[in-house]
Amino acid sequence: MILDGRPVAQKTLDGVRAGVTRLREATGVQPKLAVVLVGDFAPSKIYVASKIRTTESVGIASEDHLFPGGLTQDALIKLLHSLSDDASVHGILLQLPLPTGLDESAAIDAIAPNKDVDGLHPVNMGRLLAGATGMVPCTPAGCLEILDHYGAALRGAEAVVIGRSRLVGKPLAQLLLARHATVTTCHTRTRDLGAHTRRADVLCVAAGRARVITGDMVKAGAFVIDVGINRLETGKLAGDVDFESVSAKANVTPVPGGVGPMTIAMLMRNTLLTAERQIARS
Amino acid sequence: MILDGRPVAQKTLDGVRAGVTRLREATGVQPKLAVVLVGDFAPSKIYVASKIRTTESVGIASEDHLFPGGLTQDALIKLLHSLSDDASVHGILLQLPLPTGLDESAAIDAIAPNKDVDGLHPVNMGRLLAGATGMVPCTPAGCLEILDHYGAALRGAEAVVIGRSRLVGKPLAQLLLARHATVTTCHTRTRDLGAHTRRADVLCVAAGRARVITGDMVKAGAFVIDVGINRLETGKLAGDVDFESVSAKANVTPVPGGVGPMTIAMLMRNTLLTAERQIARS
Repeated sequence: MILDGRPVAQKTLDGVRAGVTRLREATGVQPKLAVVLVGDFAPSKIYVASKIRTTESVGIASEDHLFPGGLTQDALIKLLHSLSDDASVHGILLQLPLPTGLDESAAIDAIAPNKDVDGLHPVNMGRLLAGATGMVPCTPAGCLEILDHYGAALRGAEAVVIGRSRLVGKPLAQLLLARHATVTTCHTRTRDLGAHTRRADVLCVAAGRARVITGDMVKAGAFVIDVGINRLETGKLAGDVDFESVSAKANVTPVPGGVGPMTIAMLMRNTLLTAERQIARS
Repeated sequence: MILDGRPVAQKTLDGVRAGVTRLREATGVQPKLAVVLVGDFAPSKIYVASKIRTTESVGIASEDHLFPGGLTQDALIKLLHSLSDDASVHGILLQLPLPTGLDESAAIDAIAPNKDVDGLHPVNMGRLLAGATGMVPCTPAGCLEILDHYGAALRGAEAVVIGRSRLVGKPLAQLLLARHATVTTCHTRTRDLGAHTRRADVLCVAAGRARVITGDMVKAGAFVIDVGINRLETGKLAGDVDFESVSAKANVTPVPGGVGPMTIAMLMRNTLLTAERQIARS
């Protein structure tokens, strides 16, 4: 089975669009996402353009703060504080990575936790670890949506996550644990990666290297989520999973068209959620 | 090898005592720990008495707020806010569990993160997940100290943690991951517990049930940390590990005298740390 992310993303976006309409009818308020992009890193510009397009398609307003020429740390923090204080802004997306010289942690700390649609503020990360409901980072949340959509059983399952970044691997492991999977986190220092991947019922790969997981490394019938996106020398895009050999024996997300569309869809859902919570509280 | 926690705790306490002396000589300030105990749960009373005795032994002042007859949620929150604002108090220890009817999460949120010596505030949990240095919960931090003291190799090791509580299992898994172990978290829903424990180079057990890990479930030469403390029908204390059969083939902490003394020692170290940081900042 190909775990196509596009219909899942579409379903999520349809739900967000309906939620936005309901919210506007009930309260007159349109959710608004502030997008902050510093520098001119090409992939970031592509992601941001796509995010802005998607906000429009679901009826969320966007307010764009683009600084292709860069920004000082002080000015960035001041901007994030002012967006945090602005009642008309419900979500703040700070596109990462920041250009060299800017302090990412300090910037994330400057975003109000209840507007942190990427779920990266320490308070939201802490709530995730504590098992309570904060904002969940978009990519891991999207992986779970795909697994649920295609009927992967998580309770009691052997789940293996490759990668331990704070954006993907770590929160993903916590989400799987909260769903009662037995979770192993592997990484570059793992000695026998294949021994772990071969026993996985659910295998999530965020290794950051093209095609490191091949067919001989996965269990027949497993659910394999490929979070990687790598540009090959040929110019083609490839995931961290070797699609051809793995799809012959397991269920796997394609790249592109797997996790990617889900990340943006979950960003929209998080924006709607933050708006609903802020309006309910005011 | 018996992984005796007492000499490790002693070494830690000696270091704290020297640090307290240095701090007093340099700044004239004595670190102070505020201890809050609500209700009259017998084990909590014993822990708190022991913690207060230990503060005295290392030169830390303690300020005790004991409410054996209970306290309302409002009064508890007000107290925690006032201790958070009191510049003479450097650490706040809220003894858990709270009596039924009190909201533990709300209480923890009311403690200033920089005085949270138990490392349970979402901000500190989040920093742990992000890999930055916040306050690390005392019991997991104590487990790492024991492993380091007795020379367990962690980098690349297969580490298995049994239990996923926010006080022990989850932060312990994060600490092991930060030390580059490949980490598996097992729990009550894990299907084949023995298959995981048998491949563990480092096995940390916080299952909450007496003697669930027996000799046939551990690898020869493994390092086994027993976080459990259970009172048997005979009145004797026992860990989550069957000490007799496991100690015949692996390195294991005794109960009592293993992790227990380390938890209190790490609490003292965290109190000193918070005091040093607050004084440096003022």
